[in-house]
Order: sequence, then structure tokens, then C-alpha cells
Amino acid sequence: MSTPLTNVRSDRVKAVRALSRRSVRDKTGRFLAEGPQAVREAVTHHPAAVVDLYLTRDAATRHTDIVDVASAAGVHVHEVSDEVLAAMCETQAPQGLAAVCRVLTASLTEVLAARPRLLVLLTNVRDPGNAGTVIRGADAAGADAVLVSDASVDVYAPKVVRSTAGSLFHLPVVTGLAIDPTIAELRDAGIRLLAADGAGTVLLPECDLSSPHAWVMGNEAWGLEPETRSRCDEVVRVPIYGRAESLNLAMAATVCLYASASAQNH
Amino acid sequence: MSTPLTNVRSDRVKAVRALSRRSVRDKTGRFLAEGPQAVREAVTHHPAAVVDLYLTRDAATRHTDIVDVASAAGVHVHEVSDEVLAAMCETQAPQGLAAVCRVLTASLTEVLAARPRLLVLLTNVRDPGNAGTVIRGADAAGADAVLVSDASVDVYAPKVVRSTAGSLFHLPVVTGLAIDPTIAELRDAGIRLLAADGAGTVLLPECDLSSPHAWVMGNEAWGLEPETRSRCDEVVRVPIYGRAESLNLAMAATVCLYASASAQNH
Repeated sequence: MSTPLTNVRSDRVKAVRALSRRSVRDKTGRFLAEGPQAVREAVTHHPAAVVDLYLTRDAATRHTDIVDVASAAGVHVHEVSDEVLAAMCETQAPQGLAAVCRVLTASLTEVLAARPRLLVLLTNVRDPGNAGTVIRGADAAGADAVLVSDASVDVYAPKVVRSTAGSLFHLPVVTGLAIDPTIAELRDAGIRLLAADGAGTVLLPECDLSSPHAWVMGNEAWGLEPETRSRCDEVVRVPIYGRAESLNLAMAATVCLYASASAQNH
Repeated sequence: MSTPLTNVRSDRVKAVRALSRRSVRDKTGRFLAEGPQAVREAVTHHPAAVVDLYLTRDAATRHTDIVDVASAAGVHVHEVSDEVLAAMCETQAPQGLAAVCRVLTASLTEVLAARPRLLVLLTNVRDPGNAGTVIRGADAAGADAVLVSDASVDVYAPKVVRSTAGSLFHLPVVTGLAIDPTIAELRDAGIRLLAADGAGTVLLPECDLSSPHAWVMGNEAWGLEPETRSRCDEVVRVPIYGRAESLNLAMAATVCLYASASAQNH
């Protein structure tokens, strides 16, 4: 590392900070991973995607493992002042480090070529926390990939990246998918489409989850579009045993994904 | 309803707004439920706990069901201006209504007298969203009650109430419990104590969940206190099938609770 960067008004700082805007991420093909968990998973699992690592002297001392892996991978490592890091990040407490990464490219074709057994397709999901938590849950449940429709939140938005807790770097996340052709491709690949919907007729514990399938999840508030739901093989409902009206999207997805993982692993 | 309340500086508005502070809730024994979902569940399931219902003219027109139930239960219904409602609430968009409620009193003795089969005990849980989501998940999974330690977040905080999505009014939530005597009481009542912990030795799918039990959950960041964990009958781990380090507290709780519900209901 060379001289620490201390000028909060530099073009570099402005360019990093601008990555909190979707238009800038779309134009540059870059995004910011903030905090030790996201940065560690980025340099460990996708070193080639990491362009610049920024960290305070204190963080460099605490996270020598991250610095070592990043340096070995040829990542540009920059020491920055606390003020510069704060000016770069959206998070109030990025714990001393952040990394500019290239958007991870994964295609549906590649995902399907690997003969997946468990997928999630998010359609019209708008809440960053929900999207990130579903990606984390999909990773935990051993899903092969997460597919995200073009009408959903940008998974490279800072809040989504944060809520994935590093999982964004663990499994392929395919973005910008048009729903209709995606459903057609999944079907052609022999993957059953299971709509998760509170109005479903099949109860989750009664659903056969042993063969390859994709959970199709809709918007937090209004659920799945009727056209999408009608193109699925089954409409599955997580049973409500008490008086709650529903589970939130991330909880429902996690329960469905764990039911799948349990059926496929035991 | 009489003349609309329009003075945002009135003592009444200040008193309602002050309920966003824990010290005021503790002193007055009251809290605020914001938005149609929470208010509807409050007047439906705990009408005697609802002291005052405040709503805009627009909300009164949209939610005649809520006004009817509240009026029939003898709740004081007040029409307020948009500005007054905004000044009363913490939420930016309470969708036109809020209700001042008495803190719901549920005791561990009452809960145990009803011979519960499924409980959750939250110890040192600090994040409002996590606590509320666990209460919602416990409700959905048909748990008999949620028990909350004295070192946890106040479940009557606006953000917790909001994240329960009405479930706070659906099942007994016992608060302010000291951990050690609570564990002793649960044990005396024949309830197995299952610590949910990423370092657990028993995998969730291998755990016998048919008999009455309580899931004991720890802090979001540091997990369960070693003393608490060691007093549990089993330390149970949600399997991680992928590369994720862990699930977040609310997801882990929901997966555990649904495994219990499935074992007890099928």
C-alpha cells in the first residue's frame, strides 16, 4: 500500500460513492461491497471481479487475511482515512473496508448447463432486504442459483449486497431476466416450476420436492402475477398453523427452500 | 366521532408521540399500534386493550370494519387531520390510522397452565426487525407463546410492533423474563429446551420435535450465552447446505419453528 488517500473530495471518492446509484452501476458495470464479510467473500470466491480494495489502517491490521488474499489475487489495495471510507460508502459503519467489484456475470444458459436441482426465481421483488435475505437463504439451503426478473430490485444495490451477508459471491445470481422466456427455458430443461403463493392449493408438506425444481416468488405486497402463477406446475402454500395472515417473502422463501433441501439431502 | 383533531401541538399529540420512547411506555403501560393491519388485529383480538383509535377521514371511509369493531368494543374513536396523525406516529406512512393500546399482559404461569407444545424464548435479542419477525413466524407456525428475556428489545417498540404484522395480538408474548428462573420453570413443566445455535451438535432434521419444547434463541451477533446454552437439553443446528456462514436470527427461528409445526401437525 502507498500513501493513504485522505481527500474526501477527490474524483476517486466521488466515483466510488456514485456506485450507490443504479444508473452508475449499470453504466460502469461495477458495484461496491461494504464491510469485512462481503469483502472477504468477494476476494475469496471472485478475486478476478474485485478491482480496488479500500481500507483504513485499523482494518488492515485487523483483517490481514483479507489483505493477503486480495494482494495475492492482484487486487489494488489502498489505505484510506476513516473520512474517505465514510464518504465512499452508503453504510454508516462499513467497519473499515469496502471493495469496488465488477458485476458478476452469470447466465441462465450456464446455470442450466450445470443441471441444477434447486433454483429460485424472483419476480417483481422490490424490497432490498427481502431480496438479499432470499439470496442468503438460497445459499444456506444449497440452491444452485438465484434468478432475478428484470422488474425486480437491483441485486447490486448496497442494501441488497449487505443483506446477502456474502452469499452474493457464493452462488450464481442471474439478473435482468424476462419472465416468459425464462419460464420456457426452465421448463425445457425439465425443471418443475413451483409458485409459492398464499392462495396455493398444494400444502408445502404435501409437495413432492425430490425432483429438480424452481421456486417462483412474487412481489412482497401483491404476490405473483396471475399470468406467471398460471404458467407454474403447482401453486404451493406454506401452511399457517396459527392466526398470522402470512409469512413475509424472505421467511416464506426460506421455509420453502429448506423443505426442498431437506427432501433432496435426506 | 366528534370534531377532527387538527392541533399538532396539543398535549394529546405529544403524549401519543412520546410512546415511541421506551421510558414512556414503561411508565404509562401503553404503546402505539400503527397502520391498518396492526390496528385491525388489536381491535379484533384485544379490544379491551385498545384505549384510543385515531384515524383520518379518508381512513375512516376505507376501514369501516375497523371503526365498527372498535366502536362496538367501546374504544374512543377520534378523527384526526393527516398532520396530527403524522405527528403522533413514528412510521412515515401509517396509512391513516393508529391506536393507543394498553401493554398486553401475559404471564409465564398462564402460558404454562395452558400446556403449551411449542414455545420460543428470545434471549438478548436486540434488533427490532428480528424480534418482530420471530413473533410473526411463531404465530404462523402455531406456537403457543413467545417468551422474551429482560435483556431483549422492548416488543412494544414501534418497529417491533410493525414487523410482527399483527401477530403481537395473536399469541401471548411474555416479556421481562429473567433467563435462569424461566428455564427452571419450563423444565419443571416438562418442556424440552432446544438451543438453536450454529455450533450445535444435533442437526435440525435429526431432532425429535414431537414432544413439547421451547426454542431458545440468542443474540443476533454473538448467539447464545454459554451458560444458557449449557442449560438446554439439546443444542440444535440448522444445516447449511451451501456456502453461507449462517442464517439470520429470524430465518433460523422460522426454519426451526416450521420443523416443529410440521412434526407436531402431521
